[in-house]
Amino acid sequence: MDKSIKNFGSRDMLPKLQNKDSLFLCVIASTLTSRIPGITGAGATPELTDYTPAADVELITHGEPQCLPEIPQTLVDGQAAPTPAVITKAALEMANIPFLVADAGSAIKPNIPYVKINDKQGQNILSGQAVGNPKEIFNKGKILGETLSKLTEHLVIGESTPAGTTTALGVLAAMGYDAWGKVSGSTPENPHDLKRQTVEKGIQAAGLMDKLPLDPFKAVETVGDPMIPAVAGITAGSKVPVTLAGGTQMTAVCSFLKEAITDFSFDDVSITTTIFVARDETSDINYIARQIAPINIFAVDPAFEKSENLGLKNYVKGAVKEGVGAGGAMFAANLKGISINDIRIKTEELCREIF
Amino acid sequence: MDKSIKNFGSRDMLPKLQNKDSLFLCVIASTLTSRIPGITGAGATPELTDYTPAADVELITHGEPQCLPEIPQTLVDGQAAPTPAVITKAALEMANIPFLVADAGSAIKPNIPYVKINDKQGQNILSGQAVGNPKEIFNKGKILGETLSKLTEHLVIGESTPAGTTTALGVLAAMGYDAWGKVSGSTPENPHDLKRQTVEKGIQAAGLMDKLPLDPFKAVETVGDPMIPAVAGITAGSKVPVTLAGGTQMTAVCSFLKEAITDFSFDDVSITTTIFVARDETSDINYIARQIAPINIFAVDPAFEKSENLGLKNYVKGAVKEGVGAGGAMFAANLKGISINDIRIKTEELCREIF
Repeated sequence: MDKSIKNFGSRDMLPKLQNKDSLFLCVIASTLTSRIPGITGAGATPELTDYTPAADVELITHGEPQCLPEIPQTLVDGQAAPTPAVITKAALEMANIPFLVADAGSAIKPNIPYVKINDKQGQNILSGQAVGNPKEIFNKGKILGETLSKLTEHLVIGESTPAGTTTALGVLAAMGYDAWGKVSGSTPENPHDLKRQTVEKGIQAAGLMDKLPLDPFKAVETVGDPMIPAVAGITAGSKVPVTLAGGTQMTAVCSFLKEAITDFSFDDVSITTTIFVARDETSDINYIARQIAPINIFAVDPAFEKSENLGLKNYVKGAVKEGVGAGGAMFAANLKGISINDIRIKTEELCREIF
Repeated sequence: MDKSIKNFGSRDMLPKLQNKDSLFLCVIASTLTSRIPGITGAGATPELTDYTPAADVELITHGEPQCLPEIPQTLVDGQAAPTPAVITKAALEMANIPFLVADAGSAIKPNIPYVKINDKQGQNILSGQAVGNPKEIFNKGKILGETLSKLTEHLVIGESTPAGTTTALGVLAAMGYDAWGKVSGSTPENPHDLKRQTVEKGIQAAGLMDKLPLDPFKAVETVGDPMIPAVAGITAGSKVPVTLAGGTQMTAVCSFLKEAITDFSFDDVSITTTIFVARDETSDINYIARQIAPINIFAVDPAFEKSENLGLKNYVKGAVKEGVGAGGAMFAANLKGISINDIRIKTEELCREIF
């Protein structure tokens, strides 16, 4: 394994995954939670966060977003940090890994062929009525996971869900996990108070404060997002090893799986993220994961401190950190022999071309 | 090769396909053309034909249709003939072939995860304005074909498009091919006059009678259906051999490919249908195909005359004949060592369970 990949957690999945062919699936979703000012950096304005998932996957497929004129960026001290979709694109292209998109409920639809799991975006979780049909989304995800696992040896599932760490916090907290102040975020200043208040107000609005912990479907219905039951369903349906490519949001998926399926085994499921999440001082992915199960966690370090691109350097300062499965895409490319160093160089090239 | 598979046409694709793993994709679409009374047997009433594509793929995925209470059947002399989706289901399950669905524009959407290529159904071709966006559908199909061909060694593409032989006739005729009286149909009495009049009125309504032959996109736009540019696009995008699993409708796809792409090669493309189409005295798939290119055509004979199921026996009398890629699904299963005889037995079992 490339020395840029660190293994956290108590298992080593690598022998199971070495030399495997991967299929990369990006699940897109949005909730109106991302319109809350200051809650997410995944979009130039709160309104534009609706476009981020579609723009991300259009960027990977077409080399440019088509649903909006600009490329999703996060601003840090007046400096822009590019969407992690650029890293994902670099990794997948270098390793010739097939790229598919599934819509779990994104406000704006991408101009590419995609698998429809669910049409409607989630509501603002402040309402306490976030997702209308989590069971249906989970069941459709299961069918898709079963089908896709006939087509590959290793399923890598990324996501693009603006404000997704807040809705992940919602699902974790509503199910009784201690995740307050532990979820990651796309800005250097992680707005933990705002996230906590948003989740608590949502659970209060639903009148469920004294009904905690909730079952996983009720938790998503109240304060979650459509990505979580979709990715949980796909993982549950898969007959091949699954890499959940994301940060603390993927711990919400794992907690959902643990609570929704009796004796769910994490033997073939691991989380792969970036070093920016793993080393994030404003969050703690391991702390959350330990409460669920012994889950293997990989963290990939693209060494952006070496980059001449100021946007990528901002990742080191805590901007963006992860998303669109960037960590898992680099990991899957590395399984095919591509070095993480070469992926950084290719990412820099793409940034020069695209921005 | 199983002796139940006959090879028509001037090439033999078999050495290229033997022992290959297949992925079966069913492209669904509809046009309001299917509401013209008497034009199709693919539905109990003209209105119910809107539901047939969704019901077909739900039947394969769930074992029963969910969008409507009954299973699509064709009536012949008061006897029902079951949808060919049952044959496809039997073949794919026996050979464990992955099954995916793409929507090219079906009126009713199936309750399964499916790839969205295009949302809107086609209009009645009598209007001369059948499909609004054939170029977009073709381009999205190309992206999908490229992606899917990274996931399999052999792409089998079936379709479910009520009144699809009429819209296929429209596209063939509008592009200048002689297909009058040569397309197949789902009923023993092939309503050639009605099909011809429908196509001619559509071309007249568009004011294009003196502009013939039309280019392929204009032909689909005027008197086609959304399945044709979708399947043509997927085929054009594929880097692995493609089996077009269908009858005379697939000749319209081939003619589209020939006219849309300079020097398109049919070296890796073949049509596979059932013996009921190949031996149909009311149509001539070889006559149409010969005008396009030397295209390999396989025909699979499930020997339904041996069946104790009266519905399947009606196929021998000319009911249904083909659809939902039944011929190609049997062919792909046979490539994996499943005998056509065993597929017939399994189809009979499914008919007993389902109906």
